[in-house]
Amino acid sequence: MQTLSIILFGVGGVGNALLRQIMEQREFHRAEYGLALRVVAVCDSNGAVIADSGELDNAVLGSILAHKESGGRLRTHAQGGPQGDLVGIVDIAGRDGAVVVDCTASDATVPALLFALDRGYKVVLANKVPLTVDLDVYHAITRAGATGDFTRHLGRSRWETTVGAGLPVIVTLNRLVASGDSVARIAGTFSGTLGYVMTGLQQGKLLSEIVREAYDLGYTEPDPRDDLGGVDVARKALILARGLGWKLNMRDVTIEGLYPPSMDELSVPAFLEAVSQLDADFQERVQQAAAEGKVLRFAALVEDGHCRVGPTVVDADSPLGRLSGTDNLIELTTRWYTPNPLVVQGRGAGVDATAAGVLSDIVELAFVE
Amino acid sequence: MQTLSIILFGVGGVGNALLRQIMEQREFHRAEYGLALRVVAVCDSNGAVIADSGELDNAVLGSILAHKESGGRLRTHAQGGPQGDLVGIVDIAGRDGAVVVDCTASDATVPALLFALDRGYKVVLANKVPLTVDLDVYHAITRAGATGDFTRHLGRSRWETTVGAGLPVIVTLNRLVASGDSVARIAGTFSGTLGYVMTGLQQGKLLSEIVREAYDLGYTEPDPRDDLGGVDVARKALILARGLGWKLNMRDVTIEGLYPPSMDELSVPAFLEAVSQLDADFQERVQQAAAEGKVLRFAALVEDGHCRVGPTVVDADSPLGRLSGTDNLIELTTRWYTPNPLVVQGRGAGVDATAAGVLSDIVELAFVE
Repeated sequence: MQTLSIILFGVGGVGNALLRQIMEQREFHRAEYGLALRVVAVCDSNGAVIADSGELDNAVLGSILAHKESGGRLRTHAQGGPQGDLVGIVDIAGRDGAVVVDCTASDATVPALLFALDRGYKVVLANKVPLTVDLDVYHAITRAGATGDFTRHLGRSRWETTVGAGLPVIVTLNRLVASGDSVARIAGTFSGTLGYVMTGLQQGKLLSEIVREAYDLGYTEPDPRDDLGGVDVARKALILARGLGWKLNMRDVTIEGLYPPSMDELSVPAFLEAVSQLDADFQERVQQAAAEGKVLRFAALVEDGHCRVGPTVVDADSPLGRLSGTDNLIELTTRWYTPNPLVVQGRGAGVDATAAGVLSDIVELAFVE
Repeated sequence: MQTLSIILFGVGGVGNALLRQIMEQREFHRAEYGLALRVVAVCDSNGAVIADSGELDNAVLGSILAHKESGGRLRTHAQGGPQGDLVGIVDIAGRDGAVVVDCTASDATVPALLFALDRGYKVVLANKVPLTVDLDVYHAITRAGATGDFTRHLGRSRWETTVGAGLPVIVTLNRLVASGDSVARIAGTFSGTLGYVMTGLQQGKLLSEIVREAYDLGYTEPDPRDDLGGVDVARKALILARGLGWKLNMRDVTIEGLYPPSMDELSVPAFLEAVSQLDADFQERVQQAAAEGKVLRFAALVEDGHCRVGPTVVDADSPLGRLSGTDNLIELTTRWYTPNPLVVQGRGAGVDATAAGVLSDIVELAFVE
């Protein structure tokens, strides 16, 4: 029986779903893979539960989930305490072959991730932020385990769920790159919320109407501008571009959100009112595209050394053009995949699909030295 | 610099393309991954070229490609000789961490693959046959590197290109399974030739007309029944079903080819004439499907413990239904990917795309213990 110790940053959301899936799949992983996944520490933003010895068993993990779901913080859990710092937790809880799993959405984990890598541990990221700050941090994480000063390494790190949640996007990109195939163009939609909005526009609804509806249904972030602005999609585009070896930063990504920066100062209710000022413009753009046999999508484009995120006119009968609803989709046009691109499509969000992708990453790493 | 020695079974076709890509990407793999891929032996069906010491460098590999492309056999190459047996070649040429790459289409490689695994070497298969004969052989290959008697292992073997060529089909399936996601249904088209035929039917052409055209254009095997019979697709369906842990064999796969077994006895020209007897039936099936908003595809279905391959009526607005032309497509409907399936789509054939997939497998294995 092989064991792998897990240190989890970020409980709540994806972290919770991951713990639940680890508990649920324990017997499966033991019986089928000869693999025992042992959770040894879990942290939220100011607290932690750390196994004194051994692991946090299903009873403790269950009590953590119940505590978090009833609104509690880890520092007030029966076995919990203040977090101290994440580096210290990796230092204390880490064991041979430990994997640090980052399900937060913050850059506060970066020092602990780098410390873990220095120790020879493994890392799995659902968190896009460490891969979209300094290029040095991106390289340190993605070439984890490299023994020399090489750009690439298919070794001790995984970050599949940073783009398209559980969809096999990063593994596909890494495989194309590893074969020496030359990727000429990446185009994709990486936001379910923006997919919903663009599908609505396509159906002839007004932007303000769709945004209000999505907001009321809880499909958007509490402040819908966090979706509509496109920054999250831009982070994903940057991760893909960096995956091609391009030395870009967030400031190099051209972002055209669905609303003008002038609306950033408004309250949420005022913003929801103000969106109607944009209705006519989007209606016209959709109609103009339709007149040319095209459709409007909120796409990320990685092409010719440049990353661009925003409303994009695409052929109606391309994979992106045929997509409707909230699914994510990526088209990769390469030396070997042309004129038809390689396409991956499906649910690109949701805590369970994301947690399942993280769990796949963890199991894969169990078989990497 | 890390080195990985490659023993290649099968030159010609995919094997040739692989050697060419290895030569072309040598500097890239060294510079970016710190990886030196060293071809130490290549074999065809009755000859071999084996490096005395070191490796077969680009000059030798180039001369092998030229020799093969001019119709020569390896036994008559300047450095070539009779093959002896493949086990012996693995024995002589194998080194620590060697990878045996099977680009043949025969079961003659099985003893050498098993011998290589016993030695602790790695294996990459583009060859479907070893994975579709005995279940024991399937398990031995796919759980290469397991230290106990476990069913699954994400270790020292890869077989991505056995289904959908370079498309990320096996890695996607293995990742879903590893997370404990439950795959309820796999549906896909895995033959460019059959995709071409079904698209033609959809456009109102006659079966006999399309088959004749595809044959004349060289889109089919020399005997088009090798495509139209569906056995190759059935092998792919079986590999997917076994990937789910199902204990099935080829005899358990229900195959409905595009022509009746009675036509197996005909010569190729007589067969091409006889196909017109089937025209009316297929025309009717396509029309009947269309009347219900559906389309006819040549699909593989893996569902409810059963594998079925043959003409299949699918919803016109499903991913399979929207596909046209020669691209392959797989839909995976699972606990987390429902009602919309996870979809992978793109070119699923061609020696270059296949060789690139094999090369990705090789590079991945360089980073696995």
